[in-house]
Amino acid sequence: MKEYIFKLTLKVRDYECDLQGVVNNSNYQRYMEHTRHEFLESLGENFRKMHEEGLDGFVSSVSIQFKTSLRSGDSLVSCINVAKQGVKLVFEQDIYRAADMVLAAKGKVESVLMKDGKLTRGEYYDKLLEKINKT
Amino acid sequence: MKEYIFKLTLKVRDYECDLQGVVNNSNYQRYMEHTRHEFLESLGENFRKMHEEGLDGFVSSVSIQFKTSLRSGDSLVSCINVAKQGVKLVFEQDIYRAADMVLAAKGKVESVLMKDGKLTRGEYYDKLLEKINKT
Amino acid sequence: MKEYIFKLTLKVRDYECDLQGVVNNSNYQRYMEHTRHEFLESLGENFRKMHEEGLDGFVSSVSIQFKTSLRSGDSLVSCINVAKQGVKLVFEQDIYRAADMVLAAKGKVESVLMKDGKLTRGEYYDKLLEKINKT
Amino acid sequence: MKEYIFKLTLKVRDYECDLQGVVNNSNYQRYMEHTRHEFLESLGENFRKMHEEGLDGFVSSVSIQFKTSLRSGDSLVSCINVAKQGVKLVFEQDIYRAADMVLAAKGKVESVLMKDGKLTRGEYYDKLLEKINKT
Repeated sequence: MKEYIFKLTLKVRDYECDLQGVVNNSNYQRYMEHTRHEFLESLGENFRKMHEEGLDGFVSSVSIQFKTSLRSGDSLVSCINVAKQGVKLVFEQDIYRAADMVLAAKGKVESVLMKDGKLTRGEYYDKLLEKINKT
Repeated sequence: MKEYIFKLTLKVRDYECDLQGVVNNSNYQRYMEHTRHEFLESLGENFRKMHEEGLDGFVSSVSIQFKTSLRSGDSLVSCINVAKQGVKLVFEQDIYRAADMVLAAKGKVESVLMKDGKLTRGEYYDKLLEKINKT
Repeated sequence: MKEYIFKLTLKVRDYECDLQGVVNNSNYQRYMEHTRHEFLESLGENFRKMHEEGLDGFVSSVSIQFKTSLRSGDSLVSCINVAKQGVKLVFEQDIYRAADMVLAAKGKVESVLMKDGKLTRGEYYDKLLEKINKT
Repeated sequence: MKEYIFKLTLKVRDYECDLQGVVNNSNYQRYMEHTRHEFLESLGENFRKMHEEGLDGFVSSVSIQFKTSLRSGDSLVSCINVAKQGVKLVFEQDIYRAADMVLAAKGKVESVLMKDGKLTRGEYYDKLLEKINKT
């Protein structure tokens, strides 16, 4: 299996499923956001604290390919790789069905960092990435 | 039909429906919140502006009886009456299926007002209610 | 601490927090639903399978008192007790902040069981409760 | 302004805003889904009825660029253009802030049609597009 720097296992919640009986597409984006924020916490940061200090990560683009529908009762493994490209932090975010590790969704999320409402060059992200490379 | 001081018509969104094919219960609470905030806007207030001025309405209790399930394709009429009881603002919130005005859900929501994190006696609410009584 | 027959620990997800910086009220109802469904799974049942067999649990009423706001970064412990009252299954659902077990929300949820669209006397629930009493 | 074959005006709901005070990214995907389903209804179809007849549209990919954050109090205009590419229906979905028609988000959504669980060549979509071209 492919390698990732961070993984989070989540259980599908029934209110996330729609009338087709599968997880509604928008919830994959939510799984991905929650995984990024948990990844951040694993590095000693917190989204709310950053916000209170005037630092806001804003997603500039999301791209998701849906491969296999998750259903009620399923667990999922949400995986992350990350790299810096210019001022952006680019997340590769893949979601697998936990039971058999079949790929459910493949995402790419780009994020920029604002400080007091102004675009930064992402120095803050550089420090985060250093932490990862040391571990 | 019963009289209300504020009504809002909304369309069911398919992502609000769960695998039973009906609107998930938690969304009635969301319809009711949105209706209260639109009611607030109809009186010249806005939830975000209030928050930025240190004023936060907090819901202290919610009670909902579910009568008839709303489904994909349905519209709903979300209705409000309101009264002050002590420091609380008490909302009577009824939701009807728009096509035949069958009662879908019957709610009671109690809200208190915090100013910079401290409970107020709700003087702000008194002024709002005065506006209503004048109209 | 009070005793419960089922507990589930969840982490607050940032998209569940609203512009007041706290978990939006409607999400407590969602935490409670997910906890009931996980409780069901702990007894060998699944909400979707039940639905596919024509058995649908419908919530007839929800009542929640909000005590302490959960925030970004918090974990919560969602607890259940359950009893049968007539045809209804009545869930006592309390949510605590995990860090200090302060009560965040106190809920009561009543559920009836429909079989192929008709109200049952809840015999299915009787069998579930027998399973609990045996454990 | 650019031309679209379908437009829907929606009001931001405060529970859609997160602790940054802006609409959470995942909700743009929800606005886009709701707009597609309302577009479908404008052509005499309904998502649930299609599902009950064994016809399910599945989104195979979503790509969204976020341009300007929507906030509490904002209304939005959600716009659609659509074209068939092979078996896929490709939606161009742009969301504007209603007050000044500033572009808030730019989306591309690809959808395939399943009949009783099997991929179709999208003949159903061809008929839909014919309806549009006639109007």
